[in-house]
Amino acid sequence: MKYGLHGKLSALPGKGQDLANILLEAATMVANAPGCQLYVVSTDTELDDTVWVTEVWDSKENHDKSLNVPGVRELIGQAMPLLDGMPEKGHEFNVIGGHGLKG
Amino acid sequence: MKYGLHGKLSALPGKGQDLANILLEAATMVANAPGCQLYVVSTDTELDDTVWVTEVWDSKENHDKSLNVPGVRELIGQAMPLLDGMPEKGHEFNVIGGHGLKG
Repeated sequence: MKYGLHGKLSALPGKGQDLANILLEAATMVANAPGCQLYVVSTDTELDDTVWVTEVWDSKENHDKSLNVPGVRELIGQAMPLLDGMPEKGHEFNVIGGHGLKG
Repeated sequence: MKYGLHGKLSALPGKGQDLANILLEAATMVANAPGCQLYVVSTDTELDDTVWVTEVWDSKENHDKSLNVPGVRELIGQAMPLLDGMPEKGHEFNVIGGHGLKG
């Protein structure tokens, strides 16, 4: 069963686009990481400066190891000062199938 | 900006797998619908008989029109008796990019 995660990141006022740009760069970095099926970056429909990341990985282990992808820790270092508080724990789910994933 | 939706469906006790199977069939039906980028079906990590659907469409209009895809209304008719109450309004978000979508 694949590992899914839908998580919210709140940026400081006016910093939402900067945060989204960092996450879009993270998406390009993890695109070729083992087991990365989906890493989609979104903005909130109502809340300014609130960014969502929706991920699907072949396993939770693949997700956890993505911290070791070259450049990812540096991006986290860039993103942290933009955040308005700590990230909330995202919503985890067990992906069983559907349309649009690679495999 | 693409339209994202992450929604929860609670099935009656013991009916979660039946509901998931119906949604997986829906995924194959909408796979070629205009603007359907993602239609992923998941189970909850903790709650029995709770199913999640994560969708990305080129526009909200594309999503709304998916009700007209042949067979979809019939599947909804099969799913409704399995539900434990009405579906909650899902979480909508504006997809700006990332990895794993078609375009």
